[in-house]
Amino acid sequence: MNRIVFFVSDSTAITAETLGRSLLTQFKQFTFERITMPFVNTLEKAQKALEEINKISREQQAKVIVFSTLVDPHLRKILSPCNGLFIDFFDQVMPALKKELHAEPEQKIGQTHGIDPQIYSSRIEAINFALDTDDGLGIKHYDKADVILIGVSRSGKTPTCLYLALQFRIHAANYPITEEDMHSGQLPKSLETYRPKLFGLTIDPERLHEIREQRSPNSRYASLDQCQYETTQIERLFQQSNIPYLNSTHFSIEEISTRIMNQMGIKR
Amino acid sequence: MNRIVFFVSDSTAITAETLGRSLLTQFKQFTFERITMPFVNTLEKAQKALEEINKISREQQAKVIVFSTLVDPHLRKILSPCNGLFIDFFDQVMPALKKELHAEPEQKIGQTHGIDPQIYSSRIEAINFALDTDDGLGIKHYDKADVILIGVSRSGKTPTCLYLALQFRIHAANYPITEEDMHSGQLPKSLETYRPKLFGLTIDPERLHEIREQRSPNSRYASLDQCQYETTQIERLFQQSNIPYLNSTHFSIEEISTRIMNQMGIKR
Repeated sequence: MNRIVFFVSDSTAITAETLGRSLLTQFKQFTFERITMPFVNTLEKAQKALEEINKISREQQAKVIVFSTLVDPHLRKILSPCNGLFIDFFDQVMPALKKELHAEPEQKIGQTHGIDPQIYSSRIEAINFALDTDDGLGIKHYDKADVILIGVSRSGKTPTCLYLALQFRIHAANYPITEEDMHSGQLPKSLETYRPKLFGLTIDPERLHEIREQRSPNSRYASLDQCQYETTQIERLFQQSNIPYLNSTHFSIEEISTRIMNQMGIKR
Repeated sequence: MNRIVFFVSDSTAITAETLGRSLLTQFKQFTFERITMPFVNTLEKAQKALEEINKISREQQAKVIVFSTLVDPHLRKILSPCNGLFIDFFDQVMPALKKELHAEPEQKIGQTHGIDPQIYSSRIEAINFALDTDDGLGIKHYDKADVILIGVSRSGKTPTCLYLALQFRIHAANYPITEEDMHSGQLPKSLETYRPKLFGLTIDPERLHEIREQRSPNSRYASLDQCQYETTQIERLFQQSNIPYLNSTHFSIEEISTRIMNQMGIKR
């Protein structure tokens, strides 16, 4: 079963996509083909979007689904009679919110991902922090870290730090634990002072082996033996040193990030 | 006017936050204090969340607002009688969707940001690509690029490339245009072959000056004169070379990324 789904927005359409996808993941028996229409922010563009939706709709056997986040009710009015199931997320919720707040929404377009200079700056700063302290770099900046991820090479530290910075403006550094550190069975000296900020990532050896094989095929580094050795050792190190840790194997970057914040008590 | 807003989810709560924030940006006259409760995925946790919400609610003069994305109707049933305005985004939309699809949702928790191994791998690969080709590095990988951002230093190239990778799994490289390149009035030779993939970023000189001052205070590099010179030159270069470009000053990273994809015809 196949359905076409449109995401229509007066801005980036990222919000419409995010919620729409969440909803659709609950209907696994269907295959959804997605078409995103961002920046539908004038009457003309809304009219054009409507025609496009109706054109594609006519070619389908089943009704198309349209998820939208259109702030301006005039734009919604143009699109709502489209030849498909039309669901505007704002429209669904706005009436209850207006009633509760005794207030009218501003109906200004493109505010969601618009720019707040202070937030923008702190976001860029967090990204720079993640880059400056990636892979054991910039230990001198650790005073400013909210969290320092430690783990073996390719256990997901860098993507998680970048996501924490982009999504939550969190200062996340990461430090690779090497084989040498494991032999000693102790945390690297340079990390000792920052113990309360440390969080460990581990990963199933089979998955680590797969990931490393892609990067360095047939190397000792990527071998299953080596991956098994490293993950066993690092988990032992986390436990002995009383470092909170997470096995990242079955989690998305979003989940890993949120769980770390949760466990470390970092406010979003 | 101050209101407390809760974001409750059985998973990361990122979807609830994203849509909830979009809605709240439309009520600028209010200040919203946000409390996020992720991983509310058992009856016990739902009960605990309910108590927490009601406790805080009692201390407030105005009703609290609760945005949730709870897949399991049993969890919603526990939280919906809370002492606040309760809006579950799934609940709002699910009935129409069920009716249209003639199907029941799976009601399996935590699917939204759960892991699809193929998507996970291509995401990690895109992030690695962005890092490997940041700031003029790894030109040998440009064959695999979906887009190559060019612009002056600190015009937003790196954060945009990282966002494109994390959010859309797009291979985005970036290359800094130096003063030398500007003097020559020509594109760097190494970019010539990849002309159809090039996209320019520019920025208001005053903003660039501010950003660079934070990084290198009182330097020639950060001076307003230098920023004016570089932005004028780069815009001339973009125009002469027929490179599509965007002024990033008033846009968020989400907007810049989406606009680039739109203009370059990159499918999400």
